[in-house]
Amino acid sequence: MNADTTARLLITCPDRPGIVAAVSGFLFNHGANITALDQHSTDPEGGLFFMRLEFQTPHLDVPREVLEKAFAASVASRFAMEWRISYAADRKKVAILVSKYDHALLELLWRHEGGELPGRVTQVLSNHPDLRAEVERFGLPYHHVPVEKDRKEEAEAAMLTYLEGTDLVVLARYMQILSPAFVAQFPYRIINIHHSFLPAFIGANPYKQAYVRGVKLIGATAHYVTEALDQGPIIEQDVARVSHRQGVEELVRLGRDLERTVLARAVRWHLEDRILVHGNKTVVFV
Amino acid sequence: MNADTTARLLITCPDRPGIVAAVSGFLFNHGANITALDQHSTDPEGGLFFMRLEFQTPHLDVPREVLEKAFAASVASRFAMEWRISYAADRKKVAILVSKYDHALLELLWRHEGGELPGRVTQVLSNHPDLRAEVERFGLPYHHVPVEKDRKEEAEAAMLTYLEGTDLVVLARYMQILSPAFVAQFPYRIINIHHSFLPAFIGANPYKQAYVRGVKLIGATAHYVTEALDQGPIIEQDVARVSHRQGVEELVRLGRDLERTVLARAVRWHLEDRILVHGNKTVVFV
Amino acid sequence: MNADTTARLLITCPDRPGIVAAVSGFLFNHGANITALDQHSTDPEGGLFFMRLEFQTPHLDVPREVLEKAFAASVASRFAMEWRISYAADRKKVAILVSKYDHALLELLWRHEGGELPGRVTQVLSNHPDLRAEVERFGLPYHHVPVEKDRKEEAEAAMLTYLEGTDLVVLARYMQILSPAFVAQFPYRIINIHHSFLPAFIGANPYKQAYVRGVKLIGATAHYVTEALDQGPIIEQDVARVSHRQGVEELVRLGRDLERTVLARAVRWHLEDRILVHGNKTVVFV
Amino acid sequence: MNADTTARLLITCPDRPGIVAAVSGFLFNHGANITALDQHSTDPEGGLFFMRLEFQTPHLDVPREVLEKAFAASVASRFAMEWRISYAADRKKVAILVSKYDHALLELLWRHEGGELPGRVTQVLSNHPDLRAEVERFGLPYHHVPVEKDRKEEAEAAMLTYLEGTDLVVLARYMQILSPAFVAQFPYRIINIHHSFLPAFIGANPYKQAYVRGVKLIGATAHYVTEALDQGPIIEQDVARVSHRQGVEELVRLGRDLERTVLARAVRWHLEDRILVHGNKTVVFV
Repeated sequence: MNADTTARLLITCPDRPGIVAAVSGFLFNHGANITALDQHSTDPEGGLFFMRLEFQTPHLDVPREVLEKAFAASVASRFAMEWRISYAADRKKVAILVSKYDHALLELLWRHEGGELPGRVTQVLSNHPDLRAEVERFGLPYHHVPVEKDRKEEAEAAMLTYLEGTDLVVLARYMQILSPAFVAQFPYRIINIHHSFLPAFIGANPYKQAYVRGVKLIGATAHYVTEALDQGPIIEQDVARVSHRQGVEELVRLGRDLERTVLARAVRWHLEDRILVHGNKTVVFV
Repeated sequence: MNADTTARLLITCPDRPGIVAAVSGFLFNHGANITALDQHSTDPEGGLFFMRLEFQTPHLDVPREVLEKAFAASVASRFAMEWRISYAADRKKVAILVSKYDHALLELLWRHEGGELPGRVTQVLSNHPDLRAEVERFGLPYHHVPVEKDRKEEAEAAMLTYLEGTDLVVLARYMQILSPAFVAQFPYRIINIHHSFLPAFIGANPYKQAYVRGVKLIGATAHYVTEALDQGPIIEQDVARVSHRQGVEELVRLGRDLERTVLARAVRWHLEDRILVHGNKTVVFV
Repeated sequence: MNADTTARLLITCPDRPGIVAAVSGFLFNHGANITALDQHSTDPEGGLFFMRLEFQTPHLDVPREVLEKAFAASVASRFAMEWRISYAADRKKVAILVSKYDHALLELLWRHEGGELPGRVTQVLSNHPDLRAEVERFGLPYHHVPVEKDRKEEAEAAMLTYLEGTDLVVLARYMQILSPAFVAQFPYRIINIHHSFLPAFIGANPYKQAYVRGVKLIGATAHYVTEALDQGPIIEQDVARVSHRQGVEELVRLGRDLERTVLARAVRWHLEDRILVHGNKTVVFV
Repeated sequence: MNADTTARLLITCPDRPGIVAAVSGFLFNHGANITALDQHSTDPEGGLFFMRLEFQTPHLDVPREVLEKAFAASVASRFAMEWRISYAADRKKVAILVSKYDHALLELLWRHEGGELPGRVTQVLSNHPDLRAEVERFGLPYHHVPVEKDRKEEAEAAMLTYLEGTDLVVLARYMQILSPAFVAQFPYRIINIHHSFLPAFIGANPYKQAYVRGVKLIGATAHYVTEALDQGPIIEQDVARVSHRQGVEELVRLGRDLERTVLARAVRWHLEDRILVHGNKTVVFV
């Protein structure tokens, strides 16, 4: 449900009895109608507890800020919760970074145009000029930020200026490695699509690696970007069957379809606040 | 979690605000620790609401019967709930009905022996004598109840005697059609495996039908048995890819693997109280 | 392999010994290098035999016409073959028919632009004006042919004029039923995408039907159009997992992704001459 | 087709024009009826060529040995072929090595009993005594060969004695690493099931590794055993979807089902002579 009256409460805390009762009781008492609830416990005896609630706001008895303050005071502090509330009406601002391949980019722009991605794509950044026309025909600004050897810092500074106010950065086959300083600006808010079934085939040319190893399935992985290359928390993966018949080029072609759908799913889930990160793993409530 | 201290509360009721708060508050106040919670609403504005909770019973402040009475009085009646609590320690008694094919039967017996099916298989009934040795080597009683033309009533009467006290009847490729009177004894407690992707290929020889139609995927469907042949609520389905290369025999062979896994999943979910039926559909909380 | 030097020979004939030797010997003797060969026999003892060969033409010792005449005389007649040779350099002319949904259309246009469909899309026809801009931004002509009640004949006549010289007609969610007379103009050269796992849910609103029946997988089917609605030879099918959580709208959304990929695969295979039809079934050599 | 009159010819050679014509002509001239033919070329211009033919032997004009000699002299030598002919009537002798887990073993024994594995399982070897009863109820000999630390050589010597005359060794979760000397006795005739999607999670405890990495799919891989641990040519792989909900134990349970089916497929294909190895990869004609 993405109605503009929908809010989502996300919680991570140590597991112990009484959390569901406290949270649902609090919301009910304030006139919030819970329309979805997912929870997960890594271990009921002293593990971590994760919860996602969707609730409807029309009959709230207090303004948002008051509700949040009351929640912090009366519930969150008691259970040592990390938490946040987001409102579907505040659509997240999304920037897409791309190099020369257009398939993952176009898939996102299409779905965005068709109303399938509940965010607002505001711009596309690229280290190449090639895809300008394709982006502009969607009515979106295209910023070409070349990344020259030994001058990556400058390029990233320019990009950060463009990205001010951005909620989510999507790497739709962006072929530059981002610096730790850049990544630190968007903690668990940069999603990358890696063209292999991670952790197999980290690094460059995964389809070539897959071909050489002779695997019978190829994959794609959407993950949050962290300092460690291709090692961030995995959001979604999928695979397709291949055989001896496919050469590297054919693997690339089949892989494109995987990359498109896997990335689109991960972006959608992020925009719907379905993903919680803990350690180097994700909890995805779908 | 199938520990012997686990209980499960299943609820169906009209949707309206406050249900989660009331149920979770009730359980918390009685010392029950909620370890899993799933809910589903067909329509938050006046639809049906479904909920499944797993909770741990060691610290209950009252005996089971008192807890259930209190729940009925203080929560269930208020929200017009259909509900039930089941206890993992009360392992459901399962009878398997079979004809001549052994694959679905053996899959269940293996998993049962390996501790993967949280119920207790108590007997196997068959209209043929063929599989006695295979069943008996699992240490289970095998009852041969022939079904003669025009004397089905007698046969079913004999079967009902054997089945007294049975919680779940599994048709593991049992090739006789059960009478409505028989089915009525086990409402939504008979699971059948149909060897097609229902509603395609209802009735006899679905693999032959699939071959003639030239489908590119074959399927299997586990469903609850109702009066209408092959029309009961679907629990689980799966498919496998086929091509022009497979003749009917090969479809049968591939289909066997589907039937085994689809039926095993459905039985497991039933035994873990994960399935709610409404109308002719299921809500499966997995 | 789609190089311009590639030719494909497709054969259907009664099965009997010596076919492979005769065909491969003939090609070798004329300087054709076989680069792919698939065969299928429904029954080696008197069934039907199907074969697809790809061969390279640069070293042919005679012109195409002479080769074909020689093949007819010395091989095809001996084995009572139905056969045809097609040349990758003669790219098939494709027309797409569409109504208001753009997803299947755009998928095809995009793959066409990216070189993934080895044919030549020449035009888009629609009974609605809505998608003109989207089509024209690919540089393709868009013909709006309204279909008024009781005047379908006229509309089809207009469409046939546009379609003169077309090799393949693709119905990318075209919501009008074509008359038998129209279909007869393109025997096994009209591909439709049906939004269900046929033969389940024939006719209108298959996602609604799937929702009502409570299936756990939804599907899409690409098939050749024949006189019988939704009954033509199936080319390709695929499914996606769903649950009680998805309402009809969500099924529609998930189904769109299936429709896109299933239709694209079927069109590609047709353009690469990988499909042989016999009776109401297909042999697809992939 | 596994009829006792079926023979299979497997060929690997440098690719060049005329191979199909020469082979099929040879067989036809000797009264062999080709009932299946698959070929693959890594690169038509100077790559490797692989071919598998099934043919029926009742009308051969010469005895097997004469046929093979003639083939060597007139065809194989001309094209520098590696080749072999095997006869379905000579069912391959299979030994299964196992430790304590029974699922992969039982799957094979059960399919063997049901006629689905076209070989002859002759014995089961284990470094533990645990599974004796389960094996013996299939009427098969069970040899317990303990492997003591620092005395592996002795154990392997004992095993080799038992394995004399064995055509295929299947490691159905056999937890000892075989020495290179042992492996060298059965080149590309030892199949192992690894409980991960190789090359991800090589080595011990792959499900634990998968859990820690937070993958969204787990897999299983059947491969030929070579000197390099978990690095031999991959025959078959499959995956199953998982989420944050599954702990390590649940991954193990789900993985068991993958291991069973993936290993059974690989063994079946080997027994039907469908696998050709080149370099560290397989060509599997299915």
